[in-house]
Amino acid sequence: MEGKDISQAVIRRMPRYYRYLGELLDAGVERISSNDLSRRMNVTASQIRQDLNNFGGFGQQGYGYNVKYLYEEIGKILGLNQMHHIIVIGAGNLGQALANYAKFEKLGFVIIALFDVNPALEGVTVRGIKIHMLDDLERFCAENQVDIAALTMPKEKAETIANRLVGLGIHAIWNFAHVDLELIDQDVVIENVHLSDSLMQLSYNIVKNNGQDGQLNEE
Amino acid sequence: MEGKDISQAVIRRMPRYYRYLGELLDAGVERISSNDLSRRMNVTASQIRQDLNNFGGFGQQGYGYNVKYLYEEIGKILGLNQMHHIIVIGAGNLGQALANYAKFEKLGFVIIALFDVNPALEGVTVRGIKIHMLDDLERFCAENQVDIAALTMPKEKAETIANRLVGLGIHAIWNFAHVDLELIDQDVVIENVHLSDSLMQLSYNIVKNNGQDGQLNEE
Repeated sequence: MEGKDISQAVIRRMPRYYRYLGELLDAGVERISSNDLSRRMNVTASQIRQDLNNFGGFGQQGYGYNVKYLYEEIGKILGLNQMHHIIVIGAGNLGQALANYAKFEKLGFVIIALFDVNPALEGVTVRGIKIHMLDDLERFCAENQVDIAALTMPKEKAETIANRLVGLGIHAIWNFAHVDLELIDQDVVIENVHLSDSLMQLSYNIVKNNGQDGQLNEE
Repeated sequence: MEGKDISQAVIRRMPRYYRYLGELLDAGVERISSNDLSRRMNVTASQIRQDLNNFGGFGQQGYGYNVKYLYEEIGKILGLNQMHHIIVIGAGNLGQALANYAKFEKLGFVIIALFDVNPALEGVTVRGIKIHMLDDLERFCAENQVDIAALTMPKEKAETIANRLVGLGIHAIWNFAHVDLELIDQDVVIENVHLSDSLMQLSYNIVKNNGQDGQLNEE
């Protein structure tokens, strides 16, 4: 598989290509030029060609891209041709929101269990997915294939639990806890969703926008 | 206000500086060199200096950074010295999870209302925050200061509602709907949280990691 030296900036753009190509496919479009794709996606055609060249190109000069082929190839690059089993640690609102989001399954990401420490949640199900007690984690991971753990518990507990998961052989963490995890094993892939950071970026851009409009009062 | 030509890559790193400086402040650290900060944050000292120089520097050669001052200045850059009122459109699991997350308030982001179309939710409160019916949106926005709208409804409805919000004078959108919004007004700032994209990036890195371990079966 290619991809060893590809920057995360390129990788961040690939899901967006996948999404647009999926929409084209649904609309019955069979072939598209990088210029047309560029206009739709509001990135330069040169950017698209450069991004895709990281993986070997996929286009024939003058013929554009075969939409279905490109969609499937990007799917493979993103690992969407295999199923991923997810467990969610923390069955509060966010954990339950993830479990309720059925669309992840269409991409091959299947949430198979939630875990919590609150006894009131024991055995409760969310969209048919059972909430287990956290002390059942070791047994569950021994008996089930788990590929990804989503962490939605408070940040104070995140690192301890992440290392416990890594010890159980889970090498991918989808981290919603507002902390950078330092793990015992360097070979773990981590994807952070820091909602507070995202809000701060938004608020930076609000301030900047107001400043450009001349509405900002300097302090 | 500075910041007009600062890249979003720099802006993406600022909340992380803010978070680390906050932890140092809590730990009673008064002053830190860019080298020490660099080791803690696992970025180069040169990167830190470059990032902060975008905003004028803040450090004195040989004296390091004053933690409290730098924390507060970055807070101002990120617009955290003012309060932001948020409404959440879509009071499903994700909308309710956002409303339940009390920590946003410590950063000055206060959720003042949720909106939904499900009559069963009318008047229900989440952590004291009331769920309104969507047809009450115009009245609510006329009577209340609203700075940010968080969109957690299905993607099919997102663009229509986003444009309706823009028409009501809301110029910042925190978009959780899995679609790129095309808005009537170019002057709106949008911050996307695409959870599916994030999962796909994670799965790309899983595939890549497996490939490096030699475990991947090429097809």
